[in-house]
Amino acid sequence: MDELTKFAPRPTGAGEMFQLLRDGQPRTRADLATLTGQARSTIAARVDLLLASGFVAPAGEATSTGGRPPATFRFNPAARVVLAVDLGATHSRLALTDLSGNVLAEHAEQIAIAEGPEPVLDRVVELAHELLASAGRPDSDLVSVGMGLPGPVEHSTGRPINPPIMPGWDDADVPGLLNRRLHVPVLVDNDVNIMALGEHTSQWPAVDHLLFVKVATGIGAGIIFDGAIRRGAQGSAGDLGHIAVPGGLDLPCRCGNTGCLEAVASGPAIASALTALGTAASSGADVVALVRAGDLDASREVREAGRHIGGVLAACVSMLNPSVIVIGGQVAEAGEHLIAGIREVVYRRSLPLATQHLRIVASRTKGRAGVLGASAMAADHVLSAAAIDAHIA
Amino acid sequence: MDELTKFAPRPTGAGEMFQLLRDGQPRTRADLATLTGQARSTIAARVDLLLASGFVAPAGEATSTGGRPPATFRFNPAARVVLAVDLGATHSRLALTDLSGNVLAEHAEQIAIAEGPEPVLDRVVELAHELLASAGRPDSDLVSVGMGLPGPVEHSTGRPINPPIMPGWDDADVPGLLNRRLHVPVLVDNDVNIMALGEHTSQWPAVDHLLFVKVATGIGAGIIFDGAIRRGAQGSAGDLGHIAVPGGLDLPCRCGNTGCLEAVASGPAIASALTALGTAASSGADVVALVRAGDLDASREVREAGRHIGGVLAACVSMLNPSVIVIGGQVAEAGEHLIAGIREVVYRRSLPLATQHLRIVASRTKGRAGVLGASAMAADHVLSAAAIDAHIA
Repeated sequence: MDELTKFAPRPTGAGEMFQLLRDGQPRTRADLATLTGQARSTIAARVDLLLASGFVAPAGEATSTGGRPPATFRFNPAARVVLAVDLGATHSRLALTDLSGNVLAEHAEQIAIAEGPEPVLDRVVELAHELLASAGRPDSDLVSVGMGLPGPVEHSTGRPINPPIMPGWDDADVPGLLNRRLHVPVLVDNDVNIMALGEHTSQWPAVDHLLFVKVATGIGAGIIFDGAIRRGAQGSAGDLGHIAVPGGLDLPCRCGNTGCLEAVASGPAIASALTALGTAASSGADVVALVRAGDLDASREVREAGRHIGGVLAACVSMLNPSVIVIGGQVAEAGEHLIAGIREVVYRRSLPLATQHLRIVASRTKGRAGVLGASAMAADHVLSAAAIDAHIA
Repeated sequence: MDELTKFAPRPTGAGEMFQLLRDGQPRTRADLATLTGQARSTIAARVDLLLASGFVAPAGEATSTGGRPPATFRFNPAARVVLAVDLGATHSRLALTDLSGNVLAEHAEQIAIAEGPEPVLDRVVELAHELLASAGRPDSDLVSVGMGLPGPVEHSTGRPINPPIMPGWDDADVPGLLNRRLHVPVLVDNDVNIMALGEHTSQWPAVDHLLFVKVATGIGAGIIFDGAIRRGAQGSAGDLGHIAVPGGLDLPCRCGNTGCLEAVASGPAIASALTALGTAASSGADVVALVRAGDLDASREVREAGRHIGGVLAACVSMLNPSVIVIGGQVAEAGEHLIAGIREVVYRRSLPLATQHLRIVASRTKGRAGVLGASAMAADHVLSAAAIDAHIA
């Protein structure tokens, strides 16, 4: 429950009418009266409120069927800005975007998430002000923050829950810490969920069933099902990394079990396999570099990792029947070998009804899936009917 | 698109106000005015329409704070009836229920679904009239039909798609065939989906994430996620039977692959394993009978089947993070052995965050999950705002 929702005034109806304009199409007052069935005078008053707020702007004149052509209005995504933050274990990316996810200013740098919430979030606040300044926007234009964290997050509170690679962050009040400094609502989610949202919003808006699979130090998936992110009962849905690999290799996993997908197909697991073959590698980045340098063992191991991931994804395809699976994360940068291995097993192991229209593709957002998703989550929050009414009040 | 929706008149608002009454709580006209923010005169007119329709009935007087106590009203589930039909390969169950799923009359019999849609649906129509007569309700009280079929169904049209055990039914217009005879909307879904809905509605209404797993001649699951049935892109979500079993037995499956869950853990698969051990059995029913008669091999094989199912469900738990998994279907009638095997592997193979609040339980609906779900699907359809407005018009 954030500030906006808690103190929402009695709705004026303008916020609800605004939902009709979110598709970006220009509409006249008469169009809006027809769509809502409400009186012209009511519509006119609401349009005035929205114009004054800036969330809606004049969009020229409609073609007239005689007489003076009527004015049209549409959603104005430039009215405000949101801060999108994608935090990884060792890397952060921040973007200031408008309300449609257009990037106005951007910054990426190395971080150490293990330093804990205070220094990391201090730096986020500092960069927020720098990005606002470089985009030439006053601080008052910032309306919300969306953030992805590399670990489990309790969605309702935005607090990390026992995050394995984020010492010091367990149960930290991330939204509260940022809200006290930036004075806007802060939405926090798991990094893979926001990547799924970013890829979905920007590349596949018409697709209702999409899986985004991140293959990096860990392996996880974000699930878009019937058009929305699905988190499950405790928010742990999509936790692919510790599913047992069909075919049963018995490598020990950091979770305490053996044979988990992460133990055979993550960046570090591929690096270990290469090291055992005599080619020193210690991370997913090393593996990607080796593949790009033409190392045949590296290509072969990446493809084999793809087959293991494909075995687990074949089960996901039977279970969820998605129409698009997007493969992202650092190891995906190794190129086609990973996806080729995945496709090979998914198409062999799934029933025709589930695969006849299935596409398995590489991420198209070039490392920006996270910030695009964080932006969409933050913008969506402030464009709800209740939030718009609160702004207008 | 059925008749009701297609010719829906301009809404009176009564249908929408009715949604507030669906929880069954008695409310006064003043309560409804407060809840909707609408004028007393508008509320009074809508209550009159709903009372005349029978969907709402007087519920006595509220306690007064002085003066004449105001009348209360509530949803009247007895106003109309729906027909719930659960068709299996060799068995059918029909129930006439009120709009809250209370069974008014019921019938079960052996059928042969392979005879094709005409004879099977003729019999459904015949039984519909018999059930109406035995419940003492005129045909005009019937407002919709819900039906489950043992194969894939295209949800938007209600047509079976390449159903493997339903020769002659492929692409049959089941809703059209029944609508021409019974003159009410007909909703059709896959049998496991309606079982999930029936178990959810009647036993776990407060749970948002539930899997219903049917273990019978085939193995499949119905998925309730964020409170609603999820069908996936082509309606094949929940198709567990052809997921590769972790640990990798290589038994051939009827789908053409090897090592599928159905090939090692379905009723016929357990029967085959028992036959190989020297105890003749040819079906799930034989297996259940042997277990009940105290056959140790049968108990052991059922538990082993449970472990295989548990291996696949462990992946589903990681993927979906449900809070309840309900085990139903004929093989589940063998008792605790199946669930014990399932629990053993799920709790061993899943991460603590996903299993700490997970319950794995036997179906509590005693074979009625299908009709209860069909009833809920049919009733839900006729109680929507648009459908109520159409009835009133």
